[in-house]
Amino acid sequence: MEEKRLIAGRRPVWEALQAGTAVSRIIVQQGLRSKAITDIVSAAKARQIAVEYWPKNAMDKRDAGNHQGVIAEVPPFRYTPFADLLAARRDEPPFLVVLDHLQDPHNVGAIVRTAYAAGCHGLILPERRAAGMTPAAVRTAAGAAEYLPVARVVNVARCLEQCREAGMWVYGADMEGEMLYTEGDYKGPVVLVIGSEGEGLGRLVKTKCDYLVRLPMRGRIKSLNASVAAGLLMYEVFRQRAGFT
Amino acid sequence: MEEKRLIAGRRPVWEALQAGTAVSRIIVQQGLRSKAITDIVSAAKARQIAVEYWPKNAMDKRDAGNHQGVIAEVPPFRYTPFADLLAARRDEPPFLVVLDHLQDPHNVGAIVRTAYAAGCHGLILPERRAAGMTPAAVRTAAGAAEYLPVARVVNVARCLEQCREAGMWVYGADMEGEMLYTEGDYKGPVVLVIGSEGEGLGRLVKTKCDYLVRLPMRGRIKSLNASVAAGLLMYEVFRQRAGFT
Repeated sequence: MEEKRLIAGRRPVWEALQAGTAVSRIIVQQGLRSKAITDIVSAAKARQIAVEYWPKNAMDKRDAGNHQGVIAEVPPFRYTPFADLLAARRDEPPFLVVLDHLQDPHNVGAIVRTAYAAGCHGLILPERRAAGMTPAAVRTAAGAAEYLPVARVVNVARCLEQCREAGMWVYGADMEGEMLYTEGDYKGPVVLVIGSEGEGLGRLVKTKCDYLVRLPMRGRIKSLNASVAAGLLMYEVFRQRAGFT
Repeated sequence: MEEKRLIAGRRPVWEALQAGTAVSRIIVQQGLRSKAITDIVSAAKARQIAVEYWPKNAMDKRDAGNHQGVIAEVPPFRYTPFADLLAARRDEPPFLVVLDHLQDPHNVGAIVRTAYAAGCHGLILPERRAAGMTPAAVRTAAGAAEYLPVARVVNVARCLEQCREAGMWVYGADMEGEMLYTEGDYKGPVVLVIGSEGEGLGRLVKTKCDYLVRLPMRGRIKSLNASVAAGLLMYEVFRQRAGFT
């Protein structure tokens, strides 16, 4: 999955600036004047982001799509080494989240946003065959990608083994889980594992979980959207730890 | 927001069929043979959906985009009259969800899916300036749009008044809410109101709420993705009603 390092178009650029997305520079088409462009330039200057004015044909070369006279360049996302997440000292037991090959960057972004809000200490993604922290994910994370450490690993099963060796309990979300998600004890060191949109948890990954927990569901569907399911689990951890009821 | 009544392309059509989306017919390009197309045709026949074979130029007229030789026609979504939702007799107190001008059909779809799973009786959307049950929303709902009644109203504030007149308690999600979302009592007749992605609840809509409830959040961001926030609230209702802890 190639990571596009540009945000093009007035609304996307405006929203990225509002969300606090890291932007290295803004490129505006020479001679264009409109309220939308002026607002973007002011917002960029307020955040001390460099603004450059380019001729239209140079901008078209940079982005062949419909840039509407404005492009934001986004620096590459800085992943945290997984070893740093494992070794970090905190004043509370570790709370990590592992995504088992999610495909949709919007789900990944929404999960980063919720994870940060729920007091999770870090997110772990597979390096391959999975959505990474693309600009779409960073944008959906609405600023949280600046704060929540995100690591990449080659092998999810191996990563879970390392978490267990480090003393964490591994809870996998699975529709056939033996306990309800509210029945887990998340006050100690925990890792939550969320399966992919279509497939759920991988077979080998399941075997590395201490517990499989399920979300109760009425009616005839069998699963929730991945970011909603992850949100319910992460807020259950938050709830037990913060003691709100 | 115009509602496109076509799903075009192999993967989107395949996923719609898997998700149980209502499809009136499948159009396949004459002379095209591939495993993906054969699988789609089998899945359509298994569901007794008509399959027609058209020449490429006729298909291009129907969908100028990249249809890859397969188009699914989707019947217009059938909204339920709001009065029917209000008047329905159920063996438990009503549980409705109102979306106050959400813009993203994927959020609407994910909320339909979660609402159905959480035992909600119906969803209410504004008729104008809001995402409706477009094919994208229906697809994201992953089959739940076939089961959960969805109504449209002209005026959200008026709709909430009618819910109150019918004896329901109105809980609005608001980041400045006076109580935590877990502190509400959702065992009686309730309506949850979820605000739009950028703006939250409208000013007038807020005045129609009996309670404003907030999601606790750590760190520096102020809101969650609309479908995640809605999921947390709806599952709190489900939790209190079903008695799981």
